[in-house]
Parts: sequence; structure tokens; C-alpha cells
Amino acid sequence: MIKDKKMLVVSAHAADYVWRSGGTIAKYIKEGAEVHVVVLSYGIRGESNDLWKQEGATEASVKAIRKGETEAAAKILGIEHLEFWDLTDYPMHFTSEHEARLVKKIREVQPDIIITHDRFDILNPDHNAVSDLVFRCSVMSNSNGVKIDGTKTTKQMRLFGFEPHQTELSNYKPDSFMDITDVYDCKIEAMKCFKAQSHLIEYYTQRAFMRGNHARRLSGNQTYKYAESFANYFPVVGPELY
Amino acid sequence: MIKDKKMLVVSAHAADYVWRSGGTIAKYIKEGAEVHVVVLSYGIRGESNDLWKQEGATEASVKAIRKGETEAAAKILGIEHLEFWDLTDYPMHFTSEHEARLVKKIREVQPDIIITHDRFDILNPDHNAVSDLVFRCSVMSNSNGVKIDGTKTTKQMRLFGFEPHQTELSNYKPDSFMDITDVYDCKIEAMKCFKAQSHLIEYYTQRAFMRGNHARRLSGNQTYKYAESFANYFPVVGPELY
Amino acid sequence: MIKDKKMLVVSAHAADYVWRSGGTIAKYIKEGAEVHVVVLSYGIRGESNDLWKQEGATEASVKAIRKGETEAAAKILGIEHLEFWDLTDYPMHFTSEHEARLVKKIREVQPDIIITHDRFDILNPDHNAVSDLVFRCSVMSNSNGVKIDGTKTTKQMRLFGFEPHQTELSNYKPDSFMDITDVYDCKIEAMKCFKAQSHLIEYYTQRAFMRGNHARRLSGNQTYKYAESFANYFPVVGPELY
Amino acid sequence: MIKDKKMLVVSAHAADYVWRSGGTIAKYIKEGAEVHVVVLSYGIRGESNDLWKQEGATEASVKAIRKGETEAAAKILGIEHLEFWDLTDYPMHFTSEHEARLVKKIREVQPDIIITHDRFDILNPDHNAVSDLVFRCSVMSNSNGVKIDGTKTTKQMRLFGFEPHQTELSNYKPDSFMDITDVYDCKIEAMKCFKAQSHLIEYYTQRAFMRGNHARRLSGNQTYKYAESFANYFPVVGPELY
Amino acid sequence: MIKDKKMLVVSAHAADYVWRSGGTIAKYIKEGAEVHVVVLSYGIRGESNDLWKQEGATEASVKAIRKGETEAAAKILGIEHLEFWDLTDYPMHFTSEHEARLVKKIREVQPDIIITHDRFDILNPDHNAVSDLVFRCSVMSNSNGVKIDGTKTTKQMRLFGFEPHQTELSNYKPDSFMDITDVYDCKIEAMKCFKAQSHLIEYYTQRAFMRGNHARRLSGNQTYKYAESFANYFPVVGPELY
Amino acid sequence: MIKDKKMLVVSAHAADYVWRSGGTIAKYIKEGAEVHVVVLSYGIRGESNDLWKQEGATEASVKAIRKGETEAAAKILGIEHLEFWDLTDYPMHFTSEHEARLVKKIREVQPDIIITHDRFDILNPDHNAVSDLVFRCSVMSNSNGVKIDGTKTTKQMRLFGFEPHQTELSNYKPDSFMDITDVYDCKIEAMKCFKAQSHLIEYYTQRAFMRGNHARRLSGNQTYKYAESFANYFPVVGPELY
Repeated sequence: MIKDKKMLVVSAHAADYVWRSGGTIAKYIKEGAEVHVVVLSYGIRGESNDLWKQEGATEASVKAIRKGETEAAAKILGIEHLEFWDLTDYPMHFTSEHEARLVKKIREVQPDIIITHDRFDILNPDHNAVSDLVFRCSVMSNSNGVKIDGTKTTKQMRLFGFEPHQTELSNYKPDSFMDITDVYDCKIEAMKCFKAQSHLIEYYTQRAFMRGNHARRLSGNQTYKYAESFANYFPVVGPELY
Repeated sequence: MIKDKKMLVVSAHAADYVWRSGGTIAKYIKEGAEVHVVVLSYGIRGESNDLWKQEGATEASVKAIRKGETEAAAKILGIEHLEFWDLTDYPMHFTSEHEARLVKKIREVQPDIIITHDRFDILNPDHNAVSDLVFRCSVMSNSNGVKIDGTKTTKQMRLFGFEPHQTELSNYKPDSFMDITDVYDCKIEAMKCFKAQSHLIEYYTQRAFMRGNHARRLSGNQTYKYAESFANYFPVVGPELY
Repeated sequence: MIKDKKMLVVSAHAADYVWRSGGTIAKYIKEGAEVHVVVLSYGIRGESNDLWKQEGATEASVKAIRKGETEAAAKILGIEHLEFWDLTDYPMHFTSEHEARLVKKIREVQPDIIITHDRFDILNPDHNAVSDLVFRCSVMSNSNGVKIDGTKTTKQMRLFGFEPHQTELSNYKPDSFMDITDVYDCKIEAMKCFKAQSHLIEYYTQRAFMRGNHARRLSGNQTYKYAESFANYFPVVGPELY
Repeated sequence: MIKDKKMLVVSAHAADYVWRSGGTIAKYIKEGAEVHVVVLSYGIRGESNDLWKQEGATEASVKAIRKGETEAAAKILGIEHLEFWDLTDYPMHFTSEHEARLVKKIREVQPDIIITHDRFDILNPDHNAVSDLVFRCSVMSNSNGVKIDGTKTTKQMRLFGFEPHQTELSNYKPDSFMDITDVYDCKIEAMKCFKAQSHLIEYYTQRAFMRGNHARRLSGNQTYKYAESFANYFPVVGPELY
Repeated sequence: MIKDKKMLVVSAHAADYVWRSGGTIAKYIKEGAEVHVVVLSYGIRGESNDLWKQEGATEASVKAIRKGETEAAAKILGIEHLEFWDLTDYPMHFTSEHEARLVKKIREVQPDIIITHDRFDILNPDHNAVSDLVFRCSVMSNSNGVKIDGTKTTKQMRLFGFEPHQTELSNYKPDSFMDITDVYDCKIEAMKCFKAQSHLIEYYTQRAFMRGNHARRLSGNQTYKYAESFANYFPVVGPELY
Repeated sequence: MIKDKKMLVVSAHAADYVWRSGGTIAKYIKEGAEVHVVVLSYGIRGESNDLWKQEGATEASVKAIRKGETEAAAKILGIEHLEFWDLTDYPMHFTSEHEARLVKKIREVQPDIIITHDRFDILNPDHNAVSDLVFRCSVMSNSNGVKIDGTKTTKQMRLFGFEPHQTELSNYKPDSFMDITDVYDCKIEAMKCFKAQSHLIEYYTQRAFMRGNHARRLSGNQTYKYAESFANYFPVVGPELY
């Protein structure tokens, strides 16, 4: 049951969460979940190559474009809780202050599900640093000996990792396929907000088709047309076999 | 929803399915599923060491005891569909006839779920041979070009692998934890049917406690007291993230 | 230098080699290589689901369609040396006769390169059986103690594995990306011969786009638009670092 | 084609690059490549055990000997671009300043190939730290959003990892074998500069013989007498299958 | 021969070493070894959940309880050399000062064996940080170029990793099983000192039974009733095959 | 304690056991163990390339030479119990008769240790087939339900795997290093019996030097000059940590 679930998405750069989990977010919101998205950086050093090619580009101009695009995409997906931490990217190095801030955030949201980068991305050291940070902070958040004023210890939540760009080289295994058929159009619209990255739009449009093919093949359910996949940080636990 | 699900369990030797999935079977039956169990061998060569130590033991006497114990355990678990193929064990080598027979069985049952041995057991070559056989037959069963009189092609079902005896050395990863708290007593009773194997009864009683501990830790759900774990042959596919 | 190279492709089912290496084959032929293709089965049991859905389908009719489509595709790719062994598929079990026949074939062709299925396909036991067979026969072929009348021992050739359908679950790692940009249209035409499998045509069309994206990203060479990837059975050896 | 290629070699300690890539460097230079070597530390804490056993050894004396030996070896290999960063070793911890400096270096050289330590060395934490640093900096260097005065963004280059000392325990897989037969004598001479380490000279002399044996066996090319092996950070991409 | 061996145990939190190596420690001491234990933190933030639930718990009160329990357990095991570093846990971040301190400690003890956390614990980032630290410091300790006043370079010692709590998910492989049958009662008594953690006492009591079962099965030696298992950081080296 | 240990070595081809375990065998015999060697094939198809190059070579002549060389090597190593099964190699396929014969052999010898090929050799399918066979037969031999006239069930013995020729590509991890320093000359003499294979003699002479280097480095014991390494099929179990 998606309804009333709380989800926290932590994205290293501005667009990561849209390419990799836009459909899942849209679906969760549509079904009544509360979704929070934290965008750690605008990705202006590492993920804005095309914007820097525009004449007269400055750090401020690139940042403004990335912010605008991300907000537009979030709106299309139905996200009401979006925040930007505006950290430096390429590289990302985290301190105790970042840890405390993220633990606080997790405890405020009290998520049932956290989605972030998977443990290893062969092409992107920032993604690995964020994966480490989020996991470490989830552990701290769950521990009632870690005292932060005004916060309440969380219960162990589920953690899921995004598909990296080149999956096989990143040792990525899809553990969970999420049907996004009925929010597919919404994801496509959201991706189109990132105007300078037409190749990625095509790439992730095809990815939804490919994962839909896999979802049908693995489940025998022919209604799955489009899907997103995720790695599970932990096994599935429940009252039946899914 | 467990109700009306169909499950097929394929067990290399007589007691394997009880130690490793007795709780899950009992739970599925209790909740209204239809469960079929195929016991490929009585395990008289490889898994009856203690019975052979009894004075005057013969192949017939060992087989009779194993059959009786298995039927008693099945009854306790609520299994109505139990069949013995009485194959030789230690080693198991399968032929095209075995393949055809198992494909036929799978098509008769039309299972939503198949549970059998996981892909690698470091200590037991029979378990590996059965894992290969069941997987190969599931693929054949799903293909409408494989024609067997009077059978109907299956839809892709879910496949799960038992925990092997020594998990780490067998590269076993638990992908799914199944809560068996409210059928735990039933599983214990079923295991006690195998009178000559008191050490295994203790071993798998403790395993349920250990997996219950893990299930709580991984899910934050404190109602899980006892659990069984399984490896997923395939990822989870569905309309939400489990 | 592709010119004058000899390549042998061994395909479990009729269309496997087109989806997975059609572009590479077309490119090698275009550049002056001699390419031989052995199709072990028509795939009538395991890979003709759509054809069996046609009213009145018989083994003979399905086989005839598969043969016709495969020959048409081969012609488009420029293949002059195509042979069908017409073995049973789903499952494939090989005997000493098959081994001797394939060793003979390898020795006749004296290939510089063999392309066949990679070592593990999670969904298709036939592919795994063929991978084992081809590798074993390549070893036998290279050994001058394995005497087969009228044949000449081969030199160690290069071996490459096809991408399986679901790469990550099959532990597939792409070791080599082959640029197929200038034969892309030819591959698309060849795939279209398999009329009943429109979903696979779309699937492998997108795959060429995706691997092209990867090829550019991994090499910095922006001229690569479309690519196929392969696993290397052995490391690369040579007078420079590729 | 080696001619006119640019290569950058990054070595944690003074002699690492000689043992592990001396032949490749000599070959590239001989064939007309431009090779730059950065030696991050003299290895006076971690890789100068024998020198410290000499009576009266001081940090300055050990450093002077290491520097002299390294320069002598570089000269024999034909290296014209050698620089020492004189960092502390055992352990190595890198800061943002080191990152910026290395990105700058990479952009100055604009290498086609970077050779450095492979991702995991079970015996040497410094090697792992350097591998991380070099990879991270190559990613930064390629990104046009990472602004460093007077530098020009690089194109994605090829990255190769050295063989660690104990390969199997370090999960090392040789992906590329490089024939060094015609510069073998030169490598031997270069290694002999490190007078206090006669056991390593013997060790890496034998290694060249062993890798030559492997190179012949894997390629069928009997002219390969001596070889060095490397791990590929990324797959091979090109217009043919190597 | 255990007698006169020197062992150093490094424990991230107060009770880790008791759950995971209490039997081995007791056995080594009983047989005449000299055992030193370093407890890096009291685990008051991350491993004292139950204590924080007590009314009026403060950092000082929790620390006092943990210290008392640990000292009591150590006494039962026969440990004469126990020291507390009182570092912060959850998370643990180590500096050069910690490295120097631990190198000094290792050189003072001159251990034949170091036992600490294994390389990967999926649930506990502190354990991973300690594993890294201890390994790095062991390398530094062995190197005679790492100068620390008043210390003497160590010889390469054996390193062993604790079983993590959830072994399979942590990629843990037991490489060594240690028979603890005749000190089993002592381990149980020591564990009982941690009064607030009755579930862990039961958990590790059962673990000793399970590993005893494995030890018998893997060795054929029926005298092994209870055991602890460890991962080997390095292979076994010796004058026979163990 | 080696004295009075019983060891069974199973070798796919005539010379395998000499290259890979000749030192260990010699050491065990020297120290008072009883060593039995089973040579499954003369390797005339797969491992006699050089002999077939001799003018007029026939199956009988090659077999005679291989037998003579193997017997000579065995004599030098001190082996008193050597038997040849004279099976076909390249490829090896085993039947139930081979299984029964090997189980019988194992039960006759009642070995404490079995040494044979490791689980995976990337270059040699025969080695993999033998590894499977020996392991399966060891399991059968230990089971008292497997009845073979005149034989007595074995106790679980230790199993070790040979180093394959190309270790890293075969996923080989050395788990045990065996010091062969004081029988090194004997191993060299034994290897020299295989006159047509001078390259392998040099290869395995260097391997002993390399493994000696590793043994010293991993143990700190400087007396180890030459060594052989093996993979452990099972963990080490015992009354101390080795």
C-alpha cells in the first residue's frame, strides 16, 4: 500500500532523481504518498557540460538554469517538498556538519523509504560519496543514542539505490522493478525540462521501455509497459513472498 | 495476497522442504494457498546417516521410515498434495524423461511460486543438480513451443531458493525474509517427525530465531519473531517498492 | 585490421546472432573479413512463441518461417557462409558427436575470432550450454593431440560473448564495444526480417543507441553513434594498449 | 598506433612505475609517444626497508638515494618528463590541494592514456589511495565545469591499472597484455638501478617471463617472449574487436 | 601452539569483542597466550539503545554502565590487558593521531595475531572504519621507515576478522573455525554481563552452537561442540596443510 | 603433524600433480605421510603437444613416453602408490562407473587430505570436470548410505585445489601456502623428467620462487624460500588460529 507512505529522495546533482526515479516518485505521489526530495548540489561543475558551452555562461547563470529546470520538473512530478543544499560538486567531500544536517532531515521526514544513489557508480565519484553519506546517516538516524535536539529517532526504513548510467560496469543488479506505466507521460514531461540534455532524455525514455520489457519477462504480467529499476540495500521482509 | 496463490515445492530429499520452508508452506496453506510438494528422493543414500546406524537397517526399512516421517510432517504442515518420485540420490543425475515429467508437473500445477534449492550448495551436489533441473524445466514449461500432450503453457512464475545448510560458504544471500511467527509451533512439530535427526531440529529451530532477529533488524517491524529466508531467482516486480 | 580476418559465429537459435552481433558481422564483411555462421537450432521450441500463436502452426511451418527469416537476414548482412544444424532446442544437450562436428567446423574455418553466447544467461539455459560447448571445442581444436581426419589444428583464436537479454542479472560485463555506426541501417534491415518479433526489433534498436552512448562516454570519441558490446573470454594481447 | 600518443603515469612511490610498467613506458617512448611520469612520494617510510637497514640512514639520505635511483631508471627507459611531488607515504591522505594539482597536471599533459595503481592492492593502502585520487581527478579533468585557470578540459582518456605485488589476493584481473619483448633488456637495466632491492628485480624479471608465457598462450602469437599486464578501468572501444 | 603467543584484539564498541571472539580469547589465555584488548569506544551512541531507554539515562550514566559491564566480562575471560580509548562512535572518523596511537600500541604488544572487525559489515559503518584503520596501522607498524620514538618495527602478524551480525549480507566468509568447546561456559558467563542485551546473548549462544555444527561437518571431528568463526585477512602459510 | 597422515592426489593428466603439488607431496612423504596418486589420463590428446611434433609419433608412443616420465617423476618424489586409469582426455566426460571407482579408491585410502584441481580453470575444461568428479565422490564416500562392497565410509577429509596455469583469470585465490624449501631440489629434479616441456619446467621453477616470496611477505617468516599454494575447498577448523 503506497498511500500514506513517506519517501525521502536524496539526489547528488539536480537532475539525478528525475532520470532515475521520476516515475516512481510520480506514482507514489499519485497514490497518496508524501515525498521529500533533497538536491545536494546543482551539479554546476560536473553535470552541466552543455550549459557551460553557452556563450557567457557564469556560475550564477548555470546555477539559475539548473534550479529553474529542477523546480519545473519537480512540479510536473507533483513534488511539494523540494530543497536545495547548494553544495559543491566534482568532487563532493562531506563533513560532520553534513552528517548532522542529513540525520536531522531524515528524522524530520521519518521516511518509510529512502531512495538515493546505489553503492557503486563506476563513472561518478560524487554518487558514491552520496551513497556512503546517506547510508551512514540512516544508521545514525535510527540509533537513539545519537542525540540531536528536537528530533525523534527513526525506525529502520527501506533503502533503494538508483540505476547508475552504465549499469554493468557499476556492478549494478536490479533487485526491484517498479511499474510506472500510468505515470510514464508525466516522467517524460518532467525530463523535458532539462532542455540542454536531449540525449539523456532519449536515453532514459528508452530505459523505461527496456525495464518495462524486463518487468514483463520476469513477472509474466503483460500490463507492465514501462518501469524503473532499483537496487535493494537490504532484503525484502514481509508476511508473504513478493 | 497469499489467498488462492498456487505454490510448487521441489525437494531433493525427503526432509529438505521441512527444514527450509516448512513455516512458509504452513503459512501459505493457512492463508488459503494451494501448495504442492514433490519429493524427488527419500534421501536414503545421502541423508539418512543416522538411520543406517540402526541395527538391521535395509534399503527398504530406511525408505519406509523416511516416507512415514515425511508424510507425518506434511500432514502437520497441512500439505494435501505430496508426491514421491523415489529417485536415487547421492548422486542425482537427470535425464530427458525427468525433464518431461517435471515440466508436465509444473504445467499441471500452474504455480505462481516455485520453491526449490538455491543455485549453489557447497556441501551437497544433489541440491545443485535439482536447482538446475527445476530452473531448466520452469523455462521449458513457460515456452509454448515445448509441446506436451494435455498440458497448457505456464506464465512466468516466481522462483525462490532454499537456504543451504552452510550459507556463507554456498554464496547464499537472503533476498526475502518470510515472517513465520504465527505458524512457528506448527513448523517445530513437523520437524520433530524426523526423530533420528535431533541435531537438525535444534539447528533449524535456532535458524528461525536468527532469521526472526534479522527480519526485525532489517524492517524495523518488532512483531516478527521467527522467519525463514530465501534467495530470489529473479528480482521483485510490482506496483510498489516492497 | 579487419581485412582478411576470419570469423566464426555460433548461434544457439536462429535469430540470436542477428540481434546481438548483426552490426559487427556486417562491418567485418564490409571491411573484407570472411564470416561463417553456424545456427545450431531454428529455435522452434524456445524462441518462436509468436509463431506458435498463429493458427494452424506446425513444427514444419514454424521451422520453414524461421529458416526463411534467418536466410533473409543473413543475406542483408552479407553473410555467404551460413549453415543450419537443425538441433532440438529447449533444452539443448550435446554429445561427443556434436563436439567432434564443431571441432571439425572450427578447424575448417581456422577463425581468428569466434563469437558465441557468453558464459551465463540467467534466462536461457540453451545459451549456457552452447557457450560451454563452443569453448570446450575451441580448446580441443587448438590441441594437436585431438586427431580428426582431414583437419588441421588451429591457433588460439579470440573468443567473444554476446550480450544476453537481461545483462545485469546475467553477470554480463561489456569488455569490448564495437562501433557499428556505418552499418547500422543494415542491421536494422536485417532485424526486420523477423516479422513476428517487433518488440525485439525495438529492443535491439534501442540497445545500439544505448551502447553508442556508452562508447562515446568511455572513449571520448564522438563519432560513435551506434555500437554493440561483447564480453571477452580472454584478455586483450598486443603490441600496444587498446 | 603508439606514435604521438600521450601517456601519463602516476606512481605512489619512487620505484612502482618501473617494476610494473617500465617495459610499456620504454616501448611507448621508443615508438614515438610522449610519456610523463609523476612520482608522488619517494617511498621513504613504506618502501625503503632495505635502505633504513644501512648504518646511519637518515630521512635525507634515504630520500637522496631513492631520488637518484629513480632518475637513473627513468633515464634508461627514455623518460624525459619526470617529476617528484615528495609527499609523505605510509599512509597517504590526499586533500583538495592535491586534487587541484593533479587535475592541472592531467590537463597540461592531455593524455590519451593514464597508467596508475589498480583499484585494490591487499598489501598497500597507499596504492589504493592513489588509485582513488587519480580516478577522481581524471573525472574532474574531463568536466568543463571544473574551472582551473589556464587549463583546458580533457577528453576521456584510457585508464590502466598496474599489477599489484600479490595479484590474486588483490582481486586483480589482467585485462590487457602488452608485449615488451624488444625493450625487455632496457627494463631489466632500469630495474637494476634499485640496488638495495635485488629480490624485487628477480621477482619482476620472472614476472615478465610469466606474462610472456600467458601472452603467447592467450593469443597464439609465439613472438611474444616478455610482457606486462594491466587491468582496464574501462572497456575497450573501437572500430574492430581486439 | 597457542602458548606464549601474543594477541591484540581491537573492538569498535565495548561489547563487540565479547560476542564475536570471547571464546577464542578465553581459550588463548587459558593455554598461556598474552592477550591485549583495545576498546575504541563505549558505544554509547550506537550500541546502547536499551540503556538509553532507561529513565534518566545520561551520557555519563550510559558510559559508566558500559564500562562496568565490559570490565566484568573481560575479567571472566581472563583478560589482564584491557584499555579504553573512549572515542565517539556513530560515526567513527579517524585522524593521523589515532593512526600514530594505534601503530604505537601494535608495536608495544608485538602481536602474533590481531583480531578486529572484518572488511565489510553491511549494518555498521563504524566496524568498517575500524577494519580500515587497524589494517592500515598494521602495515605501518611493520614498516621500519615509519619512525615512532621508543617503538620497534613489528614482524608481519596474522590478521583475523570478526563475524558481523548479518553474515551473508556482509559478504562474510568464515575461513577459520576455532574450537571453543572447553571455554564455552566462560564465554556464556562473560556475555551475561551485558544485562540489557538479552537478545544478543541468546543470539551469540546459538551462534556458538551453529558454528560448532559447521566445525564438525567440515572437519569430521565430532569433539567440536561449540566454535567461533573468523575471516582471514591473509592466507594461511606454514610447514603443512591445515 | 604430517607424520602418518594419508593423502590422495587426483591428477587429470600425467604431469599436473608434479607441476602443482610435487613439492608438497615430497615434503609429506619425507615427513612420514602415506601418499597415493591417481593419474586419470596420460594427457595424450590435450597435454602432449610437443610429443606429437616428434616424427612418427603414435598414440602408443606418446602414451609410453608420458607413462615413463610420470613414473620417473613419481619415483624422485618418493611416491610408492601411483596408479594410471588411462582415460581419454580432451574432453573428459565421467560416468557412474567412474564415480563408483573413485569412491572405492577414496574409501580404500581413507585420506586425511585430498588434493586435486581447483573448481575453475579458465583454460582447461578437463580440470573442471575432474574437480567436480572428485568433490562429488568425496561427498559420496563420506555418506554411509552409499554402499559399495568391501568399503568403509570415510570421515570428512580436507580438500585442496591446485593452482591453475593462469591463476587470476581462473578466479584462483591461494588460501594455503605450503613451505617446500627443503624439498625444492627434489621437485626440480622431478619436473625435469618431462623433457619435452622445458618451458613449463622454467615456469613452475619460477612459481616456487614467487610463492616463496609471497609466503615470507604474508607470514613474516624469512626461512620460507620456496612454496606451493593451494585453494581450500573448505575453511580451516582447529584448536587454534593458523
